[in-house]
Amino acid sequence: MQKAVRLMCGVALAGALVGVASAQDVKPDRAIKYRQGILQAVGWNMGPMAAMVKGEKPYNKDEFLMRATWVHELSPMPWEGFTPGSDQGGRTKAKPEIWKDMAKFKQYGEALQAASLKLVTAAKVGTLDAVKGPFGDVGKACSNCHDDFRSK
Amino acid sequence: MQKAVRLMCGVALAGALVGVASAQDVKPDRAIKYRQGILQAVGWNMGPMAAMVKGEKPYNKDEFLMRATWVHELSPMPWEGFTPGSDQGGRTKAKPEIWKDMAKFKQYGEALQAASLKLVTAAKVGTLDAVKGPFGDVGKACSNCHDDFRSK
Repeated sequence: MQKAVRLMCGVALAGALVGVASAQDVKPDRAIKYRQGILQAVGWNMGPMAAMVKGEKPYNKDEFLMRATWVHELSPMPWEGFTPGSDQGGRTKAKPEIWKDMAKFKQYGEALQAASLKLVTAAKVGTLDAVKGPFGDVGKACSNCHDDFRSK
Repeated sequence: MQKAVRLMCGVALAGALVGVASAQDVKPDRAIKYRQGILQAVGWNMGPMAAMVKGEKPYNKDEFLMRATWVHELSPMPWEGFTPGSDQGGRTKAKPEIWKDMAKFKQYGEALQAASLKLVTAAKVGTLDAVKGPFGDVGKACSNCHDDFRSK
């Protein structure tokens, strides 16, 4: 019960986001900094998990679960930072294609939320074997979006 | 049941953090960017809540709950970014006092986690009256720490 409930947090909130995506009346540079701050924090947490999966760092089930949970909690947050017009107005690698195909972009965001939810479930098993596949899927969710929507 | 469980997420994870606070072997500038990204995201979410509390923006209980939850989820994250030596090595307003009195600094961090947890509980009531006090307490938790540990 506890497990299932906690795992629903991020996704439920992501649903709520639809109603408030245009709530932030902010300048492009602030929106850019906001989304970059969140996405960079995702990367910050992915790093140590990747090191554990690759065997470069000892597997620690508590740290892995914490970082997986944090990635999942962060996963619904960045998207509202892609406000109309914020393809410019600050240093950004976001491609203009995001605003041309927002539906596809949002699908990628949802894919990250779903994949990170599965990673949290797997991390609760507490073994490295259990997280390897789901971690790879989160990485793929990141790179799929980067390939299409982030400049090199 | 669901409510109580969800509210425990952030605090439980903050506890886990103690064991991994030194896990990030990163350069100061990356740690600075990480913690600034998280703390700025806290501010991003505080803004619309403040506007609702002040009556500058219509109260929306779903958005308020979402932003309160996000602030609470973010609240255990920034602290590991205050790595040893990262009082310099990048643009930062963090005072050296943080590293001289890490115990007090951590207390402020825990105060934010506790206050934001109470705000989430209050936000579930779904009225503006219920959130006014708890929102003020979150603001105080922010400014208490800024007063002592952040340069103007």
